[in-house]
Parts: sequence; structure tokens; C-alpha cells
Amino acid sequence: MKDPDAGRNGVDVLPSVAANPRWTGCACVVCGRHYDTRYEGFVCADCGIDGILDAVYEGGAGVAALVRADGDDTARGLWRFAPLLPVVPTAIHPAWAVGGTALLPAPRLAAHLGLRSLVIKDDTGLPSGSLKDRAAAVALARARQLGFDHLACASTGNAAASLAVLASRGGFRSTIYVPAGAPRGKLAQLLLHGATVIRVDGTYDQAFELSLVAIERNRWYSRNCAHNPLLVEGKKTAALELAWDLTRGFTTDADLPDVVLVPVGDGCIVSATAKAFLELKDLGLVDRVPRVVGVQAAGASPLAQAWARACASQASLDGAQVRAAIAPVAPDTIADSISVGIPRNRVKAWRYVAATGGAFVAVEDDLIIATIRDLAARAGVFAEPSGAAGLAGLVAAREAGLVDPRDRVAALVTGHGLKDPGAALGHCTMPQPVAPLS
Amino acid sequence: MKDPDAGRNGVDVLPSVAANPRWTGCACVVCGRHYDTRYEGFVCADCGIDGILDAVYEGGAGVAALVRADGDDTARGLWRFAPLLPVVPTAIHPAWAVGGTALLPAPRLAAHLGLRSLVIKDDTGLPSGSLKDRAAAVALARARQLGFDHLACASTGNAAASLAVLASRGGFRSTIYVPAGAPRGKLAQLLLHGATVIRVDGTYDQAFELSLVAIERNRWYSRNCAHNPLLVEGKKTAALELAWDLTRGFTTDADLPDVVLVPVGDGCIVSATAKAFLELKDLGLVDRVPRVVGVQAAGASPLAQAWARACASQASLDGAQVRAAIAPVAPDTIADSISVGIPRNRVKAWRYVAATGGAFVAVEDDLIIATIRDLAARAGVFAEPSGAAGLAGLVAAREAGLVDPRDRVAALVTGHGLKDPGAALGHCTMPQPVAPLS
Repeated sequence: MKDPDAGRNGVDVLPSVAANPRWTGCACVVCGRHYDTRYEGFVCADCGIDGILDAVYEGGAGVAALVRADGDDTARGLWRFAPLLPVVPTAIHPAWAVGGTALLPAPRLAAHLGLRSLVIKDDTGLPSGSLKDRAAAVALARARQLGFDHLACASTGNAAASLAVLASRGGFRSTIYVPAGAPRGKLAQLLLHGATVIRVDGTYDQAFELSLVAIERNRWYSRNCAHNPLLVEGKKTAALELAWDLTRGFTTDADLPDVVLVPVGDGCIVSATAKAFLELKDLGLVDRVPRVVGVQAAGASPLAQAWARACASQASLDGAQVRAAIAPVAPDTIADSISVGIPRNRVKAWRYVAATGGAFVAVEDDLIIATIRDLAARAGVFAEPSGAAGLAGLVAAREAGLVDPRDRVAALVTGHGLKDPGAALGHCTMPQPVAPLS
Repeated sequence: MKDPDAGRNGVDVLPSVAANPRWTGCACVVCGRHYDTRYEGFVCADCGIDGILDAVYEGGAGVAALVRADGDDTARGLWRFAPLLPVVPTAIHPAWAVGGTALLPAPRLAAHLGLRSLVIKDDTGLPSGSLKDRAAAVALARARQLGFDHLACASTGNAAASLAVLASRGGFRSTIYVPAGAPRGKLAQLLLHGATVIRVDGTYDQAFELSLVAIERNRWYSRNCAHNPLLVEGKKTAALELAWDLTRGFTTDADLPDVVLVPVGDGCIVSATAKAFLELKDLGLVDRVPRVVGVQAAGASPLAQAWARACASQASLDGAQVRAAIAPVAPDTIADSISVGIPRNRVKAWRYVAATGGAFVAVEDDLIIATIRDLAARAGVFAEPSGAAGLAGLVAAREAGLVDPRDRVAALVTGHGLKDPGAALGHCTMPQPVAPLS
């Protein structure tokens, strides 16, 4: 903390934020059209809502040196990796200094699963209990750079919680659009953190649609991650921290994982994970890229299904072909944070995962529950169903030949079990009471 | 992480642990009798169960230099303050590297409360969601030093969760004694983490009694914090981190708080907080000691009641007088983690708080609920009722003349709101639905 008394009169004194001078703009994931950093749209002007953009940076030895130099300054939270983010705060406000989560070796769980080694990147300890705080932190900083003091999104889950919590910490206002039928407990938490909650009498998609119109009319900043391409950049930092820790600051690749397992809903986190490793490789900071395996719940697995259908041609498809290959499904899974019928970031996710030599697989709900139990009992990490889904994909990944017993495996655990404890806790058997001494 | 592949065959390779050579033993808080580090009992042989012990260390410039030297090595978690703990691991196992939680400036909340400045030490982000992980980490290390691989405690709450989670992370076994009527959700979480749960057909006190017998018969290590004096030492680290951050590594006292507000149940956390500042003062690392104010729920406030009765004589009472001054109450408060009728660590708590010039105060449950809402909406921190109780004591502390508008105030938030969300979330008003666009 640079100045604990900043804003002692009730005004948050936020540091100024500049664009990263090495961020050169965004490219459309469908048609490839490039937009420079002054482009104010969130999607490609030609491809519309499916034309998700993807941030692009200058590479080179200068950037690699910056990453090495800043990487051990863990007090900066995820901003230690600012050279690979679109924006750079002049100082780190504690509200934005999220990150630096534990990387836990899990030898007993590895033995149970027949793996040589397993590490868990445990993002359950972030302020709102999920990895999505990493996106919210970048959203706040970008909003600050552009002069916004009000952010909005459509979500009932982790994205909404991350916005409500970090906006409250940082002195921003937040408005969140939700379908009217969303669980009252989740809405109450958003209200508690001071967010304005707009309950839309319709589906999630209708809430999303209304949020986009409101964001434009009110001149708010959008924290819709599958829409705003810069938020995926924040999510890269989980993989960047993992890589830093396992390579001891990019000094050795010996312990870099062979496979990284990541849960997939809209496809933002898996895109970010793959992109992080590919950027490190391009910068010469690592010599190889782990295979990134995206895991969907079987009841909400449009990417895994399309990947299986596409067989050997996955990696060679262009953006338009990928978009055409993926058919929507009616989602049905206990893992609500990844219960998505048509992933908004499907093209970006497919192309980045393919570039790592990875794949998409699906996992049944009962295996997700079993994995929550394994993670809690053998690694001391309590995950919500979607948070455990990545590791739960191990069986399917093995059957697909993506994981070998000699491989080092890493899994991202993306959300805390206390967010959705019912499914896991309902499966525990209560012991019979015993008599007291007297 | 020193060796991510340690234990790849399913055996946790834990670092060895030595006693801190500057830890000289323990003194009885009632009679003052000194025990050296070889003493195997947890309480004073003369005073029995009320003769809680208190760890004592050599002081001097050498220790101060060690604290300064290690203090910025945040990768060690709370072990960066090992010179002030009874045990010193040779390396830091990630399962034990808890700590390093956020210190959040809260200017909007300070303005709302009429304070010059307010900082929140946010321990909700620890692995099991409460400050008690700091005690559990020290318990695991001490158990390792003494050759135990099995720990036990009596608790239904945060202490049990911290043991279950960290034992699972570190490859220890755990057994937890609970009254049979404890909430099934809390027991299920312990079972999920692999703890053996013994439901005792009786009260909490009967569960505690049975745990003591079982611990001795089975040669387990005790993680009963109010009983095992070394666990309070781990809890000092929240205050040590706060002091380090605000003094920029003990280089300036300008931003050290004038008052620190701490919730009080058994009295362990408030003892630890006061002790931490007093030790820093003795070592010459800070020039002054903040007034530590212990806050009890009004429905469970034996310390606050006795303090008010004792009036001007509080600081001059000896251990036996303090013990005689405090009368048990029948606890009744929504803040279950501090719902304690007779605090086991009452003598230690009283004497340390008195030594800082602080006091004990009480707060009604409705003000605790209001403070949960203030913390969430104006500082972005979601606290359970007991976790918010410290800050909730501000009004009473002001009325008692313990807080001046010019003071810098710090508050410990000790447990996450998701552990016990019902009370706070039930008070939110749901907005009416709006129509979608189409």
C-alpha cells in the first residue's frame, strides 16, 4: 500500500492509469480485421456479436525483460504482469491488487489419480471467491483510464459478484442485470455490496441484451467478459502466476506442466490460460507450451461435442469454420457457472486451445461431485462444481490420449465451494452420536 | 514453492521444523509460574484449566534485526514473522504458507463513520475463510516438530474448519469433537475435507472434555486454541502484518493506528493482537502501541461487563483478581463464533488489552448486522457476524472515550460472510422486475 490515508475524507484517491504502450489493439477472432487502441467498439464492425476481439501486443526482448523484472513484485497483485495487460496503473490501489493466489502441490491427490505430479492453482481465495476478480480488476483500471466511474454487466454469478465486490472496494458504482428468476441468495449478496440490481423479467440472454443497451445509453463501462475483450487479458494472470512459480521466475522449464485442465463456460478463462502460455513462449520466457484442456460439463458441452465431431481437423479451422462447427445446446448441469448453451467466446477458445495442442472434453455431473470431494479431502481445497470441473476432466482427457501417467498436470480451481455448497455437502454421511464422559 | 514435485508418489514431503531458539518457554497467566520449552503440559500444573500459559521470548536487537530482515519475504506467508513464533520450519510448505491478507484502506466507510481514517485487515481470504488458519498453521508446524501426524480439537466453527482444511493440505489426519446438535452444514464441510467427526451427545463443554481425554490417550496434537498456548502465537501474525504494512517495514510510525478493534469470543485473537504490538514495542520496532479494543456481542459479554464493573482498576488487577472479576453468562447472540459464556482465555485477554490502554466493550446484534452491510457496501468486504463485530464496537468505543475523531482506526475482519450468510442476506430488499426489450 503506497498511501493508506489516501482519501481519508471519504473520496477514494485512485491512481491514474495509462494504456500499456505495447498494447497495439485488437483483432477479430472470426475475420482477423485489426482495430487500433482508439477503437471504441467491443466487437468487430463487420462480424457483429460473434466478432469477439482479441488484444494484441508488441513482442520482443524488451517486453520479456520487463516481465522478468516486475514478476517477483508480488505486492502488486496481478499487476506484476502489467507488461502483458492492456493498461498500466501508475500505482496499485489495494482494491485492484488482487491475485497472488496459492499454487498447491497435491501429492496425495496425484497418487489417488495415478498421476506423476499434480498442482492446484487455487483461485478460491480471491476477494469474491472466484478467478473472475482478475477480470474485474482490469475492468476497474480500464474504466479509470477512460474516466468512467460506473460499471455494469449481466450475470447472476461469479462475474457479478466480482464486479460488486471490487467496485465497492475501489469506490466505483455498479449495475448488474439479472434474470428475475435468479436465486435470491446470490442477488442479496450483490445488493449487500451496494450494487444496483436490475431484475429482468426474462431469460439471461434478455438480461444481457438489456445490459448492452443500458451500458451504451448511460455511458457506463462494460464488465461483460465475453463481450469486452480486455477482461480476458486479466484472466491470463492465473496462468502467468502459475508459470512464474513453477519456472522460478522463468529460469527453468523443468517443472512447467505438460497439461493444464481448465473449466469452460463462455470460454474466457480457457482462452486466457492458453493465450498466457503462448505469449510467454513468443517472448522466449518458456521453451514449451502446456497442452491446455478445456473441460465442459457433459450437459453443457457444445465445444467438446463440436471438437469430437471435427476430429483431426480442429487445429486447421479458421474463425468462420469454427463458428459454423459449434451448435448450441440446451444446458443442463449442476455446475451453474459453466451452464452455457452457446459459449460467447467459443471461437477464441477453440483457436487458442488448438494452438497449444490441447482439446475440449466433457465430464458428467457425478464425476464433478466426486472431484469436489477429492479436492477437499486430499488437497484441502473446497471448490464449487464449476471450479472442480477442470480437474474432473482428467479421466476424459486420459481416454482421449491427452494425459500420460508421466505427465505433470496442473488444474485451475476457479470458484469457492461456499458459493454453492449444497451439491457437495448433501452427499456427506453424518456419523452417529457417541456418549459424553459424564 | 521450493519443490513442487516433493511427494510426487503420494507422500507429503514436509520440511523439518525446529523450536525457535529464542522462545524460552511459557508463563502461567494466573500465577506467573514459568515453564521451560520442555514442559509437555498445556496449562499450569498449579492453577489447572484456568492456568493458561503464555509464550515468552528473548528480546534484544538481534531479534529486531531478524524481524526486519525476514519481514518483506511475503512468499513465506505468516512465517515471515517466525522470529516471533515458537517454531521455525526449515522451508515453507505451501500448506502452511497462509497469511499475507489484504490491508484495505476504507475512506468511504471512514467518512460514513466520521473517522479520520480506517483500514480493514481482511482475513476472510485465508484458505478456510477465517483468521483461525493462522493458528492452525502454527499447530501443524509444531505437530511436525514433535513428530505428530494427527491433530484434534473441539469446535463446530472456524477452528474446526481451519484444522480440517490445513490438515488436508499438509497431509495430517484430523479428528474434531462437536456437540451432536451442531449444524449439519458445518459438519458436512469438515467431513468433506476428510476430518473424522465425533458427535458427542451433549454440550460443547462435554465435547471439549472428551477431546482432551482422547487427545491424551491417542497421542494426538491439540489444536484447542484456548488450551494450547502456542496457537495464540500464530494469531499474532495478523497484527504483525498490519503493523509491517502501515509502518512500511518498521521505518515510520506515522501511520500506525491509534486504535485497533477486535472481536472477542474466547479471547485468543484479542490477546494475540495486543501481544503482537507490545512485542514490537519491546523490540524497538515501533515507538507506540495502539489501544486494542476487544468487542463482544452484548448477549455474550462477560469480559465487557466485568471491565465496566472494575472501572478504574482494570489495569492493576493481577491474574487471580481478573479471574475472580469475570462472571459467566448464558450466551445469546447471532454472532456464533463469539457466542461464549465464559472465555477460556479471559485472563490473558484482559491483561494484554489493559497493557495497551485499551478496553472491552459490547455491541448489540442489530448493530453487527448494520456493520456487515456497511463493510460490504462501502469497503467491499463480506464478513460473518462475529467477523464484523470488531468494527461494530466503534460506537461503544467512542462513547467510552476510547476513539477520538482524529484517530486512525484499524479493524480486524476475522471471518467470511459466506460461512454464515443468512443473517445479513435476509435483510436485503429485492427490487421489482422490469420488462425486457423484446
